[in-house]
Amino acid sequence: MNLKPLGDRVIVKADEAEETTASGLFIASEAKEKPQSGVVLAVGAGKPDKDGNLVPVPVKVGDKVVYGKFGGQEIKVDGEDLLILRADDLYGVFE
Amino acid sequence: MNLKPLGDRVIVKADEAEETTASGLFIASEAKEKPQSGVVLAVGAGKPDKDGNLVPVPVKVGDKVVYGKFGGQEIKVDGEDLLILRADDLYGVFE
Amino acid sequence: MNLKPLGDRVIVKADEAEETTASGLFIASEAKEKPQSGVVLAVGAGKPDKDGNLVPVPVKVGDKVVYGKFGGQEIKVDGEDLLILRADDLYGVFE
Amino acid sequence: MNLKPLGDRVIVKADEAEETTASGLFIASEAKEKPQSGVVLAVGAGKPDKDGNLVPVPVKVGDKVVYGKFGGQEIKVDGEDLLILRADDLYGVFE
Amino acid sequence: MNLKPLGDRVIVKADEAEETTASGLFIASEAKEKPQSGVVLAVGAGKPDKDGNLVPVPVKVGDKVVYGKFGGQEIKVDGEDLLILRADDLYGVFE
Amino acid sequence: MNLKPLGDRVIVKADEAEETTASGLFIASEAKEKPQSGVVLAVGAGKPDKDGNLVPVPVKVGDKVVYGKFGGQEIKVDGEDLLILRADDLYGVFE
Amino acid sequence: MNLKPLGDRVIVKADEAEETTASGLFIASEAKEKPQSGVVLAVGAGKPDKDGNLVPVPVKVGDKVVYGKFGGQEIKVDGEDLLILRADDLYGVFE
Repeated sequence: MNLKPLGDRVIVKADEAEETTASGLFIASEAKEKPQSGVVLAVGAGKPDKDGNLVPVPVKVGDKVVYGKFGGQEIKVDGEDLLILRADDLYGVFE
Repeated sequence: MNLKPLGDRVIVKADEAEETTASGLFIASEAKEKPQSGVVLAVGAGKPDKDGNLVPVPVKVGDKVVYGKFGGQEIKVDGEDLLILRADDLYGVFE
Repeated sequence: MNLKPLGDRVIVKADEAEETTASGLFIASEAKEKPQSGVVLAVGAGKPDKDGNLVPVPVKVGDKVVYGKFGGQEIKVDGEDLLILRADDLYGVFE
Repeated sequence: MNLKPLGDRVIVKADEAEETTASGLFIASEAKEKPQSGVVLAVGAGKPDKDGNLVPVPVKVGDKVVYGKFGGQEIKVDGEDLLILRADDLYGVFE
Repeated sequence: MNLKPLGDRVIVKADEAEETTASGLFIASEAKEKPQSGVVLAVGAGKPDKDGNLVPVPVKVGDKVVYGKFGGQEIKVDGEDLLILRADDLYGVFE
Repeated sequence: MNLKPLGDRVIVKADEAEETTASGLFIASEAKEKPQSGVVLAVGAGKPDKDGNLVPVPVKVGDKVVYGKFGGQEIKVDGEDLLILRADDLYGVFE
Repeated sequence: MNLKPLGDRVIVKADEAEETTASGLFIASEAKEKPQSGVVLAVGAGKPDKDGNLVPVPVKVGDKVVYGKFGGQEIKVDGEDLLILRADDLYGVFE
C-alpha cells in the first residue's frame, strides 16, 4: 500500500460485516456502537511523547484487530474500501 | 482467549444480571447506570505514563470485578458474549 | 467487606436521609444536589501521580464523611445498599 | 466546627443576602451569578501539586470572603446553614 | 480598597460605557461581546505555576485596561460598582 | 499605538473585506468562517511556558497576516476599527 | 507561494473532488466527513513542545496527502483556491 498513515493512525481493511470470521469473531452487540474486526494494512510511525520520542502504534501490518467504527474515516484507495483509525480506537488484537 | 485487549482495556464475562452471585453481590440500584459484576478473561499490557513506562491494569485474569456498563463495548468471541472495558471503568474487585 | 474499591474510590454506607445524625448533621439544602453523610466501609489504594506514586485517599475506614450523591454508584453487597464514590466527590470528614 | 473540608475546600457562613454589611459590601449585580460575602469557618489542607506537595488554601478561618455561589454546596451542620466551596470559587478576601 | 482579589484576579472600575475616554478608546463593536475599558483598583498575588511559584498578574493598580466583560463578576463595594476579572480576561493595557 | 496587547495577543488592522489586496489575497471562501487578512499594529510579550519563559508571538509589527475572525474582539482606538486576536488565531504571514 | 503558514499549519491545493487521481485515490465514503486528497504547497515551522523545541510538521512541500476537510479553512491566494490545515488534520501521505 502506498498510502502511509500519519502519527498514530492505522489503515484497516474491515472483515465482511455480521459474519463469523476465521478466528471465530462474531459481532452480536446491541451496544450503541458495533465493534468490528479487520486486518491492519499500514501503520503510522506513532505520536511523539512529551520528550519528542515516538510512541509506536501497538499493532503491526497483518494483525487482525477489533475496533470501534465511529472513530474511523472511510476511504477508497485503488478500488478498495478501507478505514483510517487512530491507535486508541483499536480495542484488541488476535494472537 | 486469543483476543488480547490493547492498552488499559480488559475483557470481562458478565455475571447473569439481577441475581445474587456466589460472592453475594446483588444489584438493586436505582442509579442512572447499574454497576455489574463479572469475571476478567484478559487484560491489556497497560497504558504508558509520561515517561513511557506501562502502568499495569489493577486486576488480573480470574478476578471478579464490579464495573460500569456504559463504558464498555459488547462483543461476541467464539460464541460468548463479552465486554471490553477500560481499567478506569472498573469500580472494585472482590478479594 | 470483601469488595475492594479500585484507584481513588471509596465505599460508603449512607446515613438515613433527611435526619439529624449523632454528629448533628442535617441536610436542609435547596441546592441542585443534596450532599449526604455516611460512613466509609472501604478505600482504594489511591491513584498514581505523574511519577507513578500512589496518592492515598484522604479518608479511612470508619470515617464519617459528607459527599455529593451524583458522583456515586449505588450497589447492594450482601444485602446492604452502598455507594462507590471517587475521593474527589467527598466534601468533608467529621473529626 | 467538627466538619473538616477535604482538599482545597472551605466552609463559609454566608452574610445575610442583599444587605450592606459591616465592611460595606453590597451586592447589586445584574450578572448571571450574584457573588456573595461570608466568613470562613474551616479550611481544607489544600490540593497536592504535581510533586505531591499540598498547595495551601489562600484564606484562613475568620477571613471575610467574596465568592461565587454556584460552585458551592449548601449543608446544615448543628442547625446552621453553611456552604462548602472550592478555593477557586473564592474571588477575594477583605483585609 | 480593602478587598484583595485572590489568585490571578483583578478588580476593575469600568469607564462609562459607550463614550470616548481620555485615552481615546471608543467601543463600536458589533461583536458578540463588547470589550470595555477601565482602571485597575486591586490585583491578586497571581496563580502558582507547576513549581508552586506565583505567576504575577501582568497589570498593576492604576493601569487602564481593555477587557472582556463576560468573564467578570459585578460587585458593589462601599457604594461603587466594580468588576472582578481573571487576568486572562484582560486584553490589553494602555501605556 | 498606545494600547499594548497582553499575553499572546496581537492587534490587527483588517484589510478592506472582499477585495484583492496588494499581495493578491482574495477571500472567496464558502467555509463557515471567512479568514481575513490585515496588518499587525502591536504584539504582546507572549505567554509563559511551563518554566515561566515567555514564548514570543510568531509575528511582528508591520507583518501582513491571515487570521480567523471568530477568535478576535473588535475595538475602536482613536477612531480606528481594530481587532485583538490570540496568536493561535493567526493562520499565516506573508513573506 | 509567499504565504507562510504559522505553527503546525500546512497549505494544501485540493485535488478535483470525486475523481480517480493519478495515484488511484477515489473517495466513495458514506462517512460523516469525506476525506480528501491534495498536494502540500507550504508548511509551517511546527509547534513548540514542552521544552520550546519545534516539532516539525510530518509532511513537506510537494507531498500528496489525505486529510479531513472539516478542520481546514478555505482561502484564495493569487486566484487559487487553497486550504490551510493543522498537521493533525492530515490522515496520511502517499509514498
